[in-house]
Amino acid sequence: MQITQLDLPPEMIDLGVGQPDLALLPLDLIRQAATHRLGFDDPAPLQYGTEQGNAYFRRALAAFLSEGYGGAVDPRHLFVTAGATYGLDLICTYFARPGDTVFVEEPTYFLALRIFADRRLNVVSLPIDHRGLVPEALEEKLASVRPAFVYTVPTFHNPSGTTLSAHRREQLVRLSRRHGFLIVADEVYHLLNYTLKPPPPLAFFDTGGTVLSMGSFSKILAPGIRLGWIQAAPSLLGRLARGGLLLSSGGMNPFTSTIVESALELGLLAAHVERLKQAYHRRATALAEALGRQLPAWAAFQPPAGGFFIWLALPPDMDAEALQPAARANNVNFQPGFRFSAGGALKSFLRLSFVYYAEDRLREGAERLAAVLKNVGRK
Amino acid sequence: MQITQLDLPPEMIDLGVGQPDLALLPLDLIRQAATHRLGFDDPAPLQYGTEQGNAYFRRALAAFLSEGYGGAVDPRHLFVTAGATYGLDLICTYFARPGDTVFVEEPTYFLALRIFADRRLNVVSLPIDHRGLVPEALEEKLASVRPAFVYTVPTFHNPSGTTLSAHRREQLVRLSRRHGFLIVADEVYHLLNYTLKPPPPLAFFDTGGTVLSMGSFSKILAPGIRLGWIQAAPSLLGRLARGGLLLSSGGMNPFTSTIVESALELGLLAAHVERLKQAYHRRATALAEALGRQLPAWAAFQPPAGGFFIWLALPPDMDAEALQPAARANNVNFQPGFRFSAGGALKSFLRLSFVYYAEDRLREGAERLAAVLKNVGRK
Repeated sequence: MQITQLDLPPEMIDLGVGQPDLALLPLDLIRQAATHRLGFDDPAPLQYGTEQGNAYFRRALAAFLSEGYGGAVDPRHLFVTAGATYGLDLICTYFARPGDTVFVEEPTYFLALRIFADRRLNVVSLPIDHRGLVPEALEEKLASVRPAFVYTVPTFHNPSGTTLSAHRREQLVRLSRRHGFLIVADEVYHLLNYTLKPPPPLAFFDTGGTVLSMGSFSKILAPGIRLGWIQAAPSLLGRLARGGLLLSSGGMNPFTSTIVESALELGLLAAHVERLKQAYHRRATALAEALGRQLPAWAAFQPPAGGFFIWLALPPDMDAEALQPAARANNVNFQPGFRFSAGGALKSFLRLSFVYYAEDRLREGAERLAAVLKNVGRK
Repeated sequence: MQITQLDLPPEMIDLGVGQPDLALLPLDLIRQAATHRLGFDDPAPLQYGTEQGNAYFRRALAAFLSEGYGGAVDPRHLFVTAGATYGLDLICTYFARPGDTVFVEEPTYFLALRIFADRRLNVVSLPIDHRGLVPEALEEKLASVRPAFVYTVPTFHNPSGTTLSAHRREQLVRLSRRHGFLIVADEVYHLLNYTLKPPPPLAFFDTGGTVLSMGSFSKILAPGIRLGWIQAAPSLLGRLARGGLLLSSGGMNPFTSTIVESALELGLLAAHVERLKQAYHRRATALAEALGRQLPAWAAFQPPAGGFFIWLALPPDMDAEALQPAARANNVNFQPGFRFSAGGALKSFLRLSFVYYAEDRLREGAERLAAVLKNVGRK
């Protein structure tokens, strides 16, 4: 009788899990917000919602984001989604035709690759470096093909942890206007910054209605309420809102929107995000320090500045997937790098997350992983 | 500052609205169920949910449906959706390729036509009569083209109100197996039966995994919680559950699922559906009687046996859309029939709903509509 998506044996430490820790999901906050909201004698949140999303919720969200992003967000530039995945799905329906090409980063979020494959989009990979997507490489690809959109994770990248510099954000937007493509920016880790204050989301760099920035409450509140947003020019959002899907269903998740509206109005969310940042920062430090102490010198990674992940590079001739049986036997696991590559490359990388487990377990996981690497690799 | 999808001027009686009445949305029931659920010290509903939907919720839903349908529903045959529209959207992604043909009824749910157009599916219409979809006509079309699926509203059809006979349900399923296509049955009105007990949903006639029956809490509880289900063979549901979309987002609406689980377990929903059926039956009777009394004899309709709608036939040379300016000027409105036709036919029909307004307003609306018809038509 399964409730949650994951059902891991208790002895396993799966550092591949990119989900929040059940123990950090704020049940009390949701209780308080729901009680507040249900105290009103207003059945409107139970009705079909306006397609773009409840205007009062969008106003409260805009105020929250303006604070968090350090720049003014206009509620008219927000569209309420049932989480970033459904935002991306909607964008695929209304801004890409099957057979179209989309550009992704190499590495990129592995399940976005699945979503694009399910939609029969052609995927072309672009290289990233320590400052994120390389604009020159994008420009070179644009000479031969114009994509429907570029899918990018600009901040605390999944899986690599890198953040696109402000200068490159400007370059990317300039290219999108010149070559006529959209930028679909998956910005779900933006507010989870620990040691680096990132440049504002790509929507802030938009000069001509070519950018859709997706955010999510899954990373900063709770995945189960299925709530997120797209920040973009009203001309783009209107195409989503006036499609058959939204006309038929009404706006996405009106009921949970109003509960989160209460959480925002009561100031509960800002306080929760602060607590999360502290907890995740401690976990990031614990995992990075333990890996630094215990991994062989030939395994390299950057300490995380935000987000969920550490991207570990093994020597190029090693295959991370081939290590999984030994890892599983030692009750530790990870995401092998090839999953994050459109062409199945990146075999010598692996993704670790530091948010699902508390510090002790992370240290234990690092130790188990180090034992596997020492044992199997570089004999 | 809009919250709900509709924002009608108070003087207007829009009989075209196919939404529940705000006054019949059970805020107290949702309060009670949410309070019950949030009383548990269990954060699981806030986490990413299992792709097919919380197993405890599916068990409670199966028990509720077994009672309502009068036949056993297996929880393993249920997949939780964010409402029938998202079920249909998911089915389009995983069971149809752009450019594929889908068959629809003529008339059919007008926004399904929009959704199929957005997905670039080719739509072919099939005639219906007073017993629903005509199997012989379907068989004839199958000689020249095999559709990805047939989209049908078998029970208390939107907009015509007709119900597919049990014999035709068998014939339809037999054809789907013989010719290798799926049946996507939109069964959202099934439980709202007033004077006719319909045959069981099409999923009960499935003999070879070719039927997907979609249900929704939007019609029997509240649209704003965005919750519904698909009943089908596990082989079909598995394809939805293992797609990139569900892997990325987890199951649809885990949080609102558990609130409805409480509503089911506390017996609140069954009682609410009974109240709704009584209220809607009274409203159906009020509108049908008022129309019968006041409309010109050349305007024909069947009294509704269930569902939301009355499908009104004007003489074939009349154009319902052309009556709308006069109707609006008289503070009444309706859905013109051409919207329910893939080819823009059915111009002489119009759809009226009896669920959005209380009896007095329905009678007033019928009077206003009758005045328009008497004045404009058949001079």
